[in-house]
Amino acid sequence: MRITRKPTGQKFFDLFTEVGSNIGASVEVLRDFVRAPVDRRADLAERMHALENVGDDATHAIIEHLDRSFVTPFDRDDIYRLAVRLDDVVDHMDAAVDLATLYRVSELPEGVEAQVDLLCRAARLTAEAMPRLAAPQELTAYWVEVNGLENEADRVYRRLLSALFDGRRDALEVMKLKDVVEELEQAADAFEHVADVVHSIAVKES
Amino acid sequence: MRITRKPTGQKFFDLFTEVGSNIGASVEVLRDFVRAPVDRRADLAERMHALENVGDDATHAIIEHLDRSFVTPFDRDDIYRLAVRLDDVVDHMDAAVDLATLYRVSELPEGVEAQVDLLCRAARLTAEAMPRLAAPQELTAYWVEVNGLENEADRVYRRLLSALFDGRRDALEVMKLKDVVEELEQAADAFEHVADVVHSIAVKES
Amino acid sequence: MRITRKPTGQKFFDLFTEVGSNIGASVEVLRDFVRAPVDRRADLAERMHALENVGDDATHAIIEHLDRSFVTPFDRDDIYRLAVRLDDVVDHMDAAVDLATLYRVSELPEGVEAQVDLLCRAARLTAEAMPRLAAPQELTAYWVEVNGLENEADRVYRRLLSALFDGRRDALEVMKLKDVVEELEQAADAFEHVADVVHSIAVKES
Repeated sequence: MRITRKPTGQKFFDLFTEVGSNIGASVEVLRDFVRAPVDRRADLAERMHALENVGDDATHAIIEHLDRSFVTPFDRDDIYRLAVRLDDVVDHMDAAVDLATLYRVSELPEGVEAQVDLLCRAARLTAEAMPRLAAPQELTAYWVEVNGLENEADRVYRRLLSALFDGRRDALEVMKLKDVVEELEQAADAFEHVADVVHSIAVKES
Repeated sequence: MRITRKPTGQKFFDLFTEVGSNIGASVEVLRDFVRAPVDRRADLAERMHALENVGDDATHAIIEHLDRSFVTPFDRDDIYRLAVRLDDVVDHMDAAVDLATLYRVSELPEGVEAQVDLLCRAARLTAEAMPRLAAPQELTAYWVEVNGLENEADRVYRRLLSALFDGRRDALEVMKLKDVVEELEQAADAFEHVADVVHSIAVKES
Repeated sequence: MRITRKPTGQKFFDLFTEVGSNIGASVEVLRDFVRAPVDRRADLAERMHALENVGDDATHAIIEHLDRSFVTPFDRDDIYRLAVRLDDVVDHMDAAVDLATLYRVSELPEGVEAQVDLLCRAARLTAEAMPRLAAPQELTAYWVEVNGLENEADRVYRRLLSALFDGRRDALEVMKLKDVVEELEQAADAFEHVADVVHSIAVKES
C-alpha cells in the first residue's frame, strides 16, 4: 500500500506544514501574553483561542484527507498520531492562557518567561521539521534537540514550582499559578511527543 | 490473518457491548452520587466500585479471548487498546466517587452536574457505538460527537475550576474539590480516547 | 522482516536487562531516600539523578541500535515503546526525589513507605522479566502481578491523599507532599504501562 511518496504525500506534507506554522504563530501570542500588562490579556487570550480553532480545523483536514486517501506517505496510524499530538501542543498553550485569564492571575511568576522561551525554540524546530517529513531519517537532529529542550524545560519547571512556595504567596494563589505553569510544562511534553512520533516514523522507514 | 469478520468477531463485539453497557450503568451511579445527600454517598461509592470490578473482569475477558484467538476482527493491538481505554473511563469515574467519599467533601460545586451530564451523553454514544464496531466506518458521527462533547467538557471544567477560587472556600477545600472534578474531566478525556481508537480502526479499514 | 530471534535480538535483550537492573538500583535509592534523615537527602537525590542519566543513556543506546538494525526481535514500534516506557519509570522516581528536595519537605507522610514498597516489588518483577523478553508469552504472570500491584498502589495512594488532609498540615505543605506522592503514583502507573507493552508484544506473537 506504500508507493513512492513524492506526489502522493504532498497534500499531507502541506497540511502538516500549515499546522507547524500555526504552532509558531500560537507561541508568539503566548510570549506576548506572558509579557503583557493584565488589561491586554483578554485580547491575547482571544487571539490564542482563534489560533487553536485554526489548528483544530487543520487537524480535521488531515484526518479527513486520510479517510479519503488510498495511499499514504507513512502508516495511516502514524499520520493520525502525528496530527493528534500536534493538536495537543496548542491545546496546552491555549489552556495556560485561558486559565491565567479566568483565574485573574495578577502577576505571573518569574520563571515563566524562561519556560516560554523554551517553547519558542521547540516551536521553531517543529515548524522547520514539518516541511521535511518526506525524509524523516534526516530529522534525527530535530528529535535530539527537542528532547534536550524538554529536559531543560523539566528543570526550569521544577525550579519554578519550588520558587512558588517561597512563602510570599498564599495557598490559593500558588494553586492558580501552578495550574498555569503545569499547562506550559505539558506543552513542552507535547512537543517531545510530536518529535517521538516523527522519530518512530523514521525508525520504521530505516 | 484477517478474514470475513461476521462469525469470528462476534465474541469480541459481544464483550465490547457488555463493557459499553457497564459504562452506562456506572454513569448512572455517578449521576445519583453527585445529587445524593452526603449520608447516601458511601452506598453509591460501593455500587460504583462493584461496577468497576465488573468492568475489570470484562476487560480481562477481552484480553484472554484475544490471547486465544487466531483470527481477530481488527488488528490485535487495536482490540487491546480499545479494551484498555474503555477501562480507563470507569476507573476515573470510580476515582472521583472514591475521592469525594474519602475526603468527606460536604458540598460538590455547582458545575459538577453539568460535567456529569456531558459524561452521560458521552456514555450513551459509546454504549450505542460498541454493538456497531463491525462497521467502524459508519461510526464517524459518534467520533465527531464525542469530540464535540469533550470540547464542551473542557470549557465547563475550566469555568468550574475558576469558580472554585471565588473566595468562598479555603485552600484545603479547593484542593479536595479540584481532585474530584479533575477525575471527572479525565473521564471525559477517556471517552475521547476511546472514540479516537475506534476512529483509527475505521481509518485502517477504509 | 522477522527471523529466528536468538542471535539477532540478543543485543536488545541485553540492553533491556541493563535498563531493568538500573530500575532496580533506582528503587533502592528511593527507598533509602524516604527513610533517610533530611540532611542525607541531597546526596541521595544526586545518586538518583546519576541513575536517571544512566537510564537515559541506555534508552538512547536501544534506540540507536534500533536505527542500525535490519532485523529486530519484535516490531520496531514495540521496542521503541518499551524503551520509552521503561525510561518513564525512573523519570517519575527522580522527579519525586527532586521535588521533595527542592521543596525542603520536612517529613514525608506515613503511607509513602507503603507506596515505595509496592514500587520495589514492581521493580523486582520488571527486572526479572527483562532477560526473558525473548519468550514474551511466558510473561503473563508478570503482567498480571504488576497490574495487581498497580491496583494496590492506587488504593494506598488515595488513602495517603485523604490522610494528608487530616487537618494537621497547612495547605502549602499539603500541596508539596501531594506533588511528591503523585510522582510516586505515576511511577506505579509507569510500571503498569511497561507491563502492558510487554503483554501487547506477547499478544502479537501468540
